[in-house]
Amino acid sequence: MVIVLEQTATDEQIQNVIRHLEEYGFEVHSSKGVQSLVLGAIGVKPDFDTRKIKVLQGVADVYRVTAPFKLASRNFHPENTKIKIKDVEIGGDKIVMIAGPCSIESDEQVFKLAETVAKSGAKILRGGAFKPRTSPYSFQGLGEEGLKYIRAAADEFGLLVITEVMQISQIDLIAKYADIFQVGARNMQNFSLLKEIGATDKPVMLKRGLSATIEEWLMSAEYILAGGNSNVFLCERGIRTFEKYTRNTFDLSAIPIVHKKSHLPVFADPSHATGIRDQVPPMARAAVAAGADGLMIEIHYDPEHALSDGPQALLPEEYIRLYDELKLIAKAVGKSF
Amino acid sequence: MVIVLEQTATDEQIQNVIRHLEEYGFEVHSSKGVQSLVLGAIGVKPDFDTRKIKVLQGVADVYRVTAPFKLASRNFHPENTKIKIKDVEIGGDKIVMIAGPCSIESDEQVFKLAETVAKSGAKILRGGAFKPRTSPYSFQGLGEEGLKYIRAAADEFGLLVITEVMQISQIDLIAKYADIFQVGARNMQNFSLLKEIGATDKPVMLKRGLSATIEEWLMSAEYILAGGNSNVFLCERGIRTFEKYTRNTFDLSAIPIVHKKSHLPVFADPSHATGIRDQVPPMARAAVAAGADGLMIEIHYDPEHALSDGPQALLPEEYIRLYDELKLIAKAVGKSF
Amino acid sequence: MVIVLEQTATDEQIQNVIRHLEEYGFEVHSSKGVQSLVLGAIGVKPDFDTRKIKVLQGVADVYRVTAPFKLASRNFHPENTKIKIKDVEIGGDKIVMIAGPCSIESDEQVFKLAETVAKSGAKILRGGAFKPRTSPYSFQGLGEEGLKYIRAAADEFGLLVITEVMQISQIDLIAKYADIFQVGARNMQNFSLLKEIGATDKPVMLKRGLSATIEEWLMSAEYILAGGNSNVFLCERGIRTFEKYTRNTFDLSAIPIVHKKSHLPVFADPSHATGIRDQVPPMARAAVAAGADGLMIEIHYDPEHALSDGPQALLPEEYIRLYDELKLIAKAVGKSF
Amino acid sequence: MVIVLEQTATDEQIQNVIRHLEEYGFEVHSSKGVQSLVLGAIGVKPDFDTRKIKVLQGVADVYRVTAPFKLASRNFHPENTKIKIKDVEIGGDKIVMIAGPCSIESDEQVFKLAETVAKSGAKILRGGAFKPRTSPYSFQGLGEEGLKYIRAAADEFGLLVITEVMQISQIDLIAKYADIFQVGARNMQNFSLLKEIGATDKPVMLKRGLSATIEEWLMSAEYILAGGNSNVFLCERGIRTFEKYTRNTFDLSAIPIVHKKSHLPVFADPSHATGIRDQVPPMARAAVAAGADGLMIEIHYDPEHALSDGPQALLPEEYIRLYDELKLIAKAVGKSF
Repeated sequence: MVIVLEQTATDEQIQNVIRHLEEYGFEVHSSKGVQSLVLGAIGVKPDFDTRKIKVLQGVADVYRVTAPFKLASRNFHPENTKIKIKDVEIGGDKIVMIAGPCSIESDEQVFKLAETVAKSGAKILRGGAFKPRTSPYSFQGLGEEGLKYIRAAADEFGLLVITEVMQISQIDLIAKYADIFQVGARNMQNFSLLKEIGATDKPVMLKRGLSATIEEWLMSAEYILAGGNSNVFLCERGIRTFEKYTRNTFDLSAIPIVHKKSHLPVFADPSHATGIRDQVPPMARAAVAAGADGLMIEIHYDPEHALSDGPQALLPEEYIRLYDELKLIAKAVGKSF
Repeated sequence: MVIVLEQTATDEQIQNVIRHLEEYGFEVHSSKGVQSLVLGAIGVKPDFDTRKIKVLQGVADVYRVTAPFKLASRNFHPENTKIKIKDVEIGGDKIVMIAGPCSIESDEQVFKLAETVAKSGAKILRGGAFKPRTSPYSFQGLGEEGLKYIRAAADEFGLLVITEVMQISQIDLIAKYADIFQVGARNMQNFSLLKEIGATDKPVMLKRGLSATIEEWLMSAEYILAGGNSNVFLCERGIRTFEKYTRNTFDLSAIPIVHKKSHLPVFADPSHATGIRDQVPPMARAAVAAGADGLMIEIHYDPEHALSDGPQALLPEEYIRLYDELKLIAKAVGKSF
Repeated sequence: MVIVLEQTATDEQIQNVIRHLEEYGFEVHSSKGVQSLVLGAIGVKPDFDTRKIKVLQGVADVYRVTAPFKLASRNFHPENTKIKIKDVEIGGDKIVMIAGPCSIESDEQVFKLAETVAKSGAKILRGGAFKPRTSPYSFQGLGEEGLKYIRAAADEFGLLVITEVMQISQIDLIAKYADIFQVGARNMQNFSLLKEIGATDKPVMLKRGLSATIEEWLMSAEYILAGGNSNVFLCERGIRTFEKYTRNTFDLSAIPIVHKKSHLPVFADPSHATGIRDQVPPMARAAVAAGADGLMIEIHYDPEHALSDGPQALLPEEYIRLYDELKLIAKAVGKSF
Repeated sequence: MVIVLEQTATDEQIQNVIRHLEEYGFEVHSSKGVQSLVLGAIGVKPDFDTRKIKVLQGVADVYRVTAPFKLASRNFHPENTKIKIKDVEIGGDKIVMIAGPCSIESDEQVFKLAETVAKSGAKILRGGAFKPRTSPYSFQGLGEEGLKYIRAAADEFGLLVITEVMQISQIDLIAKYADIFQVGARNMQNFSLLKEIGATDKPVMLKRGLSATIEEWLMSAEYILAGGNSNVFLCERGIRTFEKYTRNTFDLSAIPIVHKKSHLPVFADPSHATGIRDQVPPMARAAVAAGADGLMIEIHYDPEHALSDGPQALLPEEYIRLYDELKLIAKAVGKSF
């Protein structure tokens, strides 16, 4: 932590700042400049609130010079994290495709879509049984019945299952049916939920919150890692900006940034990021070109009658055509699916 | 709902749009302009996803012309909502002050601060027993022990208690000790939690999410109201912007906007909005001048050793001085505390 | 400037960083912590691009610990700047009111509104002769004819004139008619224009850009100050956020922040910040309560036929009523108009 | 334009709204729904301020159902615009590469870099002679001397020249030396400048403002088109968000959106969007995959001593390697350079 003192700071104020730092357990170094005195405080704890120093008399500014996350940082864990689930490896050499419907709507629907997913060569089937909806009047998901459908469909076609956990009481239930937990954007800072998931050893995909910075996203990953669950990967799904022509702004630069700051794999979800079908293919292509470890894409054979997010779902044939294009781009950047 | 067709839309495309609208249960009116055909679709349901029409061939744009919330809207309930809790009325003629520490830290701490709160004339004591913290390494609250302390302190000084509920499993426990539930910014779209709180009849203060629009905030209130709990009031606490000199940007224009769109009372929390002590008084004054129904202010007699958010807490004497100033401003706008 | 090195930085990399710093003219101090080495580089110039160090091998992060502006900073000039223009003092004990139409539309219009402004007790008349419009098809202002009208009206009622300068070639012309230049939000970073205005000694009100941080705003003020014109004051007019119910988000916390970081007076423009008439009074009240040095309010006696921004203009009687309320709030915060 | 009336609107209020609409020249249609009356107003002019209706008594909401731009819209001009400059075609089948230094620093520097640009196969050389800098103390460019250097270097290697115009008085001078004008992000709404450039017939690349929506960007293009200059193309260069790990957020979804809404070609500038060298290659790859018509990349053979933006410049060998990768991605999406 670095503390810059006001040019007008008195000796008494400076001594008071140093006393506080020492009381908080820091080792203090000072460095006198032309314009201002700068203190270096060594030994900052991840949870130290730097405003405690900022409010002291004579302090101009305080900078935390180490990231507030540790287990999630590449410094701590220089090698890429690879998560092995049956025959699928996340974060390895191959890009991983997740596909399926937004919501599980019926036995038949998820079965038909699982067939498409398997045919395309993807390995993981998505589908929501418990849906976070902004309106209380919207379809809220089939619950356990839906979980049964997706597990059966996945087993039929040799796929893994990922599905969203919205509350603590669903963890045990979902663990019975799914291979991977998904934590949605709106729950990225549901710290109670993160802690409980950290106490399991089930792989978990943590989506970025709509207005979360990358640092906060990695802090949320830290919650799960700190609980002992090291099978965490991330998923960029668009952030909120003032742009109105898109549902969200797909922040693709988050992909190389996460790879630099952290060892965790990072996926991209162009379906939620753009919110509209014809934007999904160009943004999926861009995500592969930017280095994503995997993609998550929503599909539906009858999007007009989908119970949620139909307008962003690709038709099976559009999805298969896109997947073929993505394989070419992967090759162009030295990767494969 | 209004549908604008492309200038180049064919008759076939137009008939297809109309057929879809009718299939979704709308009554359709059309209006031919110079440049484009406009369809009016009557009978939109609150949860209708307008993108279902937007993706059809020949459609240029779709506008929802009614708010997606109903119970929370002033159209539905023209009179101001007033919530009566013992001798305190929220949303009535008087501005209501909530004060207290960020976290409950000890029996003594909350007792001393409750005394200050009571002496100032405020009626509601705040204090967190379960804390949502961005870092897993930060103080997470005293739990039930803290609830006991704050209840005892409030009873001693004739105050009401407000405290935050972070997860469903805490609802029953907190209901035993508190008079008002607080739903924090990071849980504003924790829909599972909102539904469960909607099933109680305990008054609830719903904070605005860091990047929530006012419409989304009112939709979250709708979740609670739709569950049958009509004792909801709101609290503006700052939104995320690109400005770096403040922790958040205090969106005071939310106050008159909420009063126009909704019948629910709206409070303001200058402590979280600004995040730093010397910004709290000017922003508290501004909130009263803007028409807030109440304020929530953090205080601490030893902010340097507070276990959370000490840097934004006012000292008891600063708080009492500010409260006196606020009374003058209230008077200037024809109100009182 | 503070440089944090990677934990894995080699001696060679560290020496390379130090060599670069010295080559750029810095005096370097180093401070070894438990986790990382921190370098303090003394003597940073206001225009030094810190990314030059950030890109070197072994560097984790770089922090500039002094503000990039100097002449605009309170450190450099601890006393409040007061700008005296005839009998009006900006930045002094009294709050200053600027009022008038958005655009000058006719001799009669500006004359009638000047009469209202004078009657209310305000001292400065606003009105645009050159208008920055987002559409090329919108009314672009009366030009020099408008300047003649506003000067004549102001002289008749003993008022000062403020009007916007949009391009360098207008400076001399406007200087003949106006007492104060206004630089609009969209020109806040029109550096060519700022430089030319810095070469005059005419007082200038610099509006904050729609997405400018306070630091960038003060850097733009620095451009004018660096040119030798010290008669600069600022005006907050709302920033862009994702909120859709308001035209912009009025960032009132900018007022106390500017007062802390800078010696320049800061005004508030609730008309542009909110964009709609019924939001203007509560936000004007809030601005006074937050400590603004002045306000700028748009008025029109026939807003329905105003050639620009009619919907945000107050009627003369609304304006006079509001001004009376503002005087009460000013009194409540120990100030006056 | 669509006007939704309040459920409580009286007949008198409704008649008043209709009278206003007719007075403003609209043809009015009405459509009675279950909950509310909706009026369709036909014949809206591009510059009509919808707030004029929104402020009338009884009006709940007003929606403009046609885009405020016309000449820039794909409706008006369904074919892609192609701009032919000597042997280069912008907006055609081939992706166009622009490369060169941020600032022109010397005869030798621009000559050496032009050689690299030509060797790579790119056709357009960039370089700033007049620099918009946030600090008045930063290098402001070589002016006409720089223009001479870049023209000479381009002629030597058969390249076109693009350079930024910051103010009206530079237009004639720059027109003598450059093939393409660049309008920078900070001048995107410098309407005076846009108008003057619209009066020339020189091709112009219009960068997106830091906080501009795509609609506003197209409105700025409309200014130039309305002046009679149809040789306009766009360039996405990152928008401002709350993310702190990147300089800006590169909004790649703007590329397919512009292609949908407009006929104008759209380029991408990963150097300014990311601001740091190691982010440039992944984002350049993503831009090609997303469908950009061209790229603009900054290069320097000695970035440590570059007078501006050195940290985001690629070394010549990095640039050439990247260009080769981009050709593979172009091929994967069915295009070429």
